[in-house]
Amino acid sequence: MEQMALHVLAILNQPSADAPPHTPGAAPFAFADAAEPHLSVMDLGVTRGDGIFESISVGHGHAQALEHHLRRFASSAAKLDLPAPDLDAWREAILAAIVELEPGAESWVKTVLTRGVEGDGRPTGWVYAAHTSDFSQARTTGVRVVTLDRGYRHDVEQTSPWLLAGAKTLSYAVNRSVLREAHRRDADDVIFVSSDGFVLEGPTSSVVFRRGDRLLTPGTGLGILDGTTQANVFRYAESLGFTTGFELVTPDQLRSADAAWLVSSVRLAAPVRALDGAPFPVDAALTAGINEYLLALTD
Amino acid sequence: MEQMALHVLAILNQPSADAPPHTPGAAPFAFADAAEPHLSVMDLGVTRGDGIFESISVGHGHAQALEHHLRRFASSAAKLDLPAPDLDAWREAILAAIVELEPGAESWVKTVLTRGVEGDGRPTGWVYAAHTSDFSQARTTGVRVVTLDRGYRHDVEQTSPWLLAGAKTLSYAVNRSVLREAHRRDADDVIFVSSDGFVLEGPTSSVVFRRGDRLLTPGTGLGILDGTTQANVFRYAESLGFTTGFELVTPDQLRSADAAWLVSSVRLAAPVRALDGAPFPVDAALTAGINEYLLALTD
Repeated sequence: MEQMALHVLAILNQPSADAPPHTPGAAPFAFADAAEPHLSVMDLGVTRGDGIFESISVGHGHAQALEHHLRRFASSAAKLDLPAPDLDAWREAILAAIVELEPGAESWVKTVLTRGVEGDGRPTGWVYAAHTSDFSQARTTGVRVVTLDRGYRHDVEQTSPWLLAGAKTLSYAVNRSVLREAHRRDADDVIFVSSDGFVLEGPTSSVVFRRGDRLLTPGTGLGILDGTTQANVFRYAESLGFTTGFELVTPDQLRSADAAWLVSSVRLAAPVRALDGAPFPVDAALTAGINEYLLALTD
Repeated sequence: MEQMALHVLAILNQPSADAPPHTPGAAPFAFADAAEPHLSVMDLGVTRGDGIFESISVGHGHAQALEHHLRRFASSAAKLDLPAPDLDAWREAILAAIVELEPGAESWVKTVLTRGVEGDGRPTGWVYAAHTSDFSQARTTGVRVVTLDRGYRHDVEQTSPWLLAGAKTLSYAVNRSVLREAHRRDADDVIFVSSDGFVLEGPTSSVVFRRGDRLLTPGTGLGILDGTTQANVFRYAESLGFTTGFELVTPDQLRSADAAWLVSSVRLAAPVRALDGAPFPVDAALTAGINEYLLALTD
């Protein structure tokens, strides 16, 4: 493959130290042409959505919140009883893919670990890196959001861990389906609500909202992801003198917030400008500050 | 590839008439080596579990309940807003794959349709055929089953169609996870229970139970699959003089049934021999009759 590629694929030889390598003695990873096929139709990643992923932002060549993403990757693997990812091998492949990618202001890296071909016993793992789409409009003007039932109670992670709520799995058909429902409702994105009426997260983002000098998020243990970007947004807000914390809220309570954002690794902070068809206040100054901070992160 | 193969892969050129072909003017499908990679790491089937499938039993060279499976395939596609599968093309590829497969008493065919590579606009479709594992023990001795919360209310298909309950999607990580939970509980399989306490289905099967001369199943509209095998079991039972019907039951009500089965296309009817750790009555004669009937089906 050419150097300085527009997208880069690195395939891991041994995604987990707990499972055999694909090629004994081979290098930890090998670059491959992302335009060519590399997966078996028998890979459980596709036949059962049986695997996990992370999406990591790369700002000016720096993988952001890399260690938080790697910890969450390992946590998702544990929830799915997958062989534990060899984080050193993954980190090496991620950093190498970033070096290989043609430099740009904003890129992203996706890591995927699947259970591999059924019966084979070797998980499949790859790192895919590419340039980021232009999200400037979502980051400034904001997004129109609708609330949609997630179907699960807010305590499902405790009562029914086999539902894998809180793991970042490849079984994301619902996370895509709700975006189509949002578009049918003339909106851009979604906030999931638990079946017992609490605000959870977006399909690919965390919910953050402001009440006066407090920045809040629903928190963990609700069958939602431990937000890497949300953690960085809180760090920034604290540096400005905000207090930060967790608060379980209903959609009605969210509606009375002073501002709200969907925050995620690649799109960063997208202010909510409409909620269920009604205008929602955008805090333009704080939004700009958050996104500048996130873009400048070097770790 | 060799003729009379132990497994066969046929890749469709144009899985839907509503989307462009992969190669204009090419044959409707092409055989390919199933042992080689054929999927992109950017295929939404793997990155988002964004696709659908069917598993079809092949008895003595006959695809069983083929038209029912094709209808359900199209119904799943509609629930996911996928381009409608061209059922004539799929049927042709299925029948050709069966001919290509080395003859055996029992085989199965899997059809998979994914949304394809993101932004490409062409869905990915393939047919995979192979010989069936030996399920004789499950079909006679039976399976030990545990009930597990599915997290959703029984009416979620009506209230929240974006959750895709009732579609046979590639996002099956939970359907795999519950089997691991069953094994931890010293059981073989699972019956899902709705969050409001009703028996639903197995992760890859329908639930059928007997009360005297009635054969019953929870029915449709509960966010569960329209069972192709369950329909055939009912047809057989009616030929014996049973009445058949739908009944919404709790696990406690199921426990008082005279017999129960998990029925599915490939494993066929597996009698429940234990439910949540307690012995459950097996109707050996009816079980044998059902499985003989299912094995002998020619359409």
